[in-house]
Amino acid sequence: MNSKKRIIIVGASGTMGTYLAGAFENEHEVVRASTDSGDYHIDITSTDSIEAFYKQVGEFDALVSVAGPTYVGPWKNLNDKEFRKGVEGKMMGQINLVLIGQHYIKPKGSFTLITGALTNEPQLHFANASAANGAVEGFVRAAAIELANGIRINAVSPTVIENSPQYFLYFPGEIPTTMKELEYGFRKSVFGTNTGQIIKL
Amino acid sequence: MNSKKRIIIVGASGTMGTYLAGAFENEHEVVRASTDSGDYHIDITSTDSIEAFYKQVGEFDALVSVAGPTYVGPWKNLNDKEFRKGVEGKMMGQINLVLIGQHYIKPKGSFTLITGALTNEPQLHFANASAANGAVEGFVRAAAIELANGIRINAVSPTVIENSPQYFLYFPGEIPTTMKELEYGFRKSVFGTNTGQIIKL
Repeated sequence: MNSKKRIIIVGASGTMGTYLAGAFENEHEVVRASTDSGDYHIDITSTDSIEAFYKQVGEFDALVSVAGPTYVGPWKNLNDKEFRKGVEGKMMGQINLVLIGQHYIKPKGSFTLITGALTNEPQLHFANASAANGAVEGFVRAAAIELANGIRINAVSPTVIENSPQYFLYFPGEIPTTMKELEYGFRKSVFGTNTGQIIKL
Repeated sequence: MNSKKRIIIVGASGTMGTYLAGAFENEHEVVRASTDSGDYHIDITSTDSIEAFYKQVGEFDALVSVAGPTYVGPWKNLNDKEFRKGVEGKMMGQINLVLIGQHYIKPKGSFTLITGALTNEPQLHFANASAANGAVEGFVRAAAIELANGIRINAVSPTVIENSPQYFLYFPGEIPTTMKELEYGFRKSVFGTNTGQIIKL
């Protein structure tokens, strides 16, 4: 059923990206993109960098984004300046991957972005991520009714990631999302037919 | 029960703000703020303007925001530049009202921001508002667990507004939120004890 696809992974050098690239590359062509390693370099906070990236990469079937810098830290230090980390990174970075990438992706291609449980279940120190996630999820639902040529868009929303134990203490009582669950969440979006969905893991 | 409060309304000259100011001023002291009229001028896209505004106004019990510029228009014209209208306006404008205002509001005071049904129910031409709303709602839930001194925060989420019939055609089948329902939504937040809630109208 899953014919061979060309899948871009943005954030390919991170914990999630490394795993997903490994999981997909047996059956598919994986294009690894990240800020400073991988097949292509991309700075998602720059629309020029995103545009140049797509021009270099050429046609593709799916874009998977696991790139999402945000401010993590004490509320008392959270001001407009710190908030911009998530606005430019996880929020506008991912949104611009779609707004620009829609002109390069193949018909019936798919975009799959990353959000997280913090959208609806906040934790201390993560207000910036809650806002960025909420923005991306609102955008995903709206983009799904706007995108042309059968292009789909979804978000995958994990809890704390199994392979990132350094974050466990910030998520008391949260059962970590396993790497396999994460992979299956992205599989559901990339190889399924759904659109406008937040795939909660 | 509702002792007299000092309530700031940001966006007081708009359709919603005008109504709410009129509804609250019989029993409370209403401070009208907007970009170019009212008791005080404020540009919510500028942190300097917000800071100066709070310094002038002095102590208050509640801030009600119905200020929320976003890009409304065809998807094909939606790019990073247009997207900033909602990012700086409805999203960061309202978020900065809270991040800065928390240092000026009275203990047990409340912030009530405006979002809208577009968060979860997108309509063509309104992707920017869906994202801004989602960001504000994620922020509200997170801020509720961070704010000190019993300060509360909620969002009111109307559908299309009864007194804004020019938008009805964009919201097919949506039953408009009446001005009275809008008022009661804000009353629930300002005079209630809830926090971190999205009050859907």
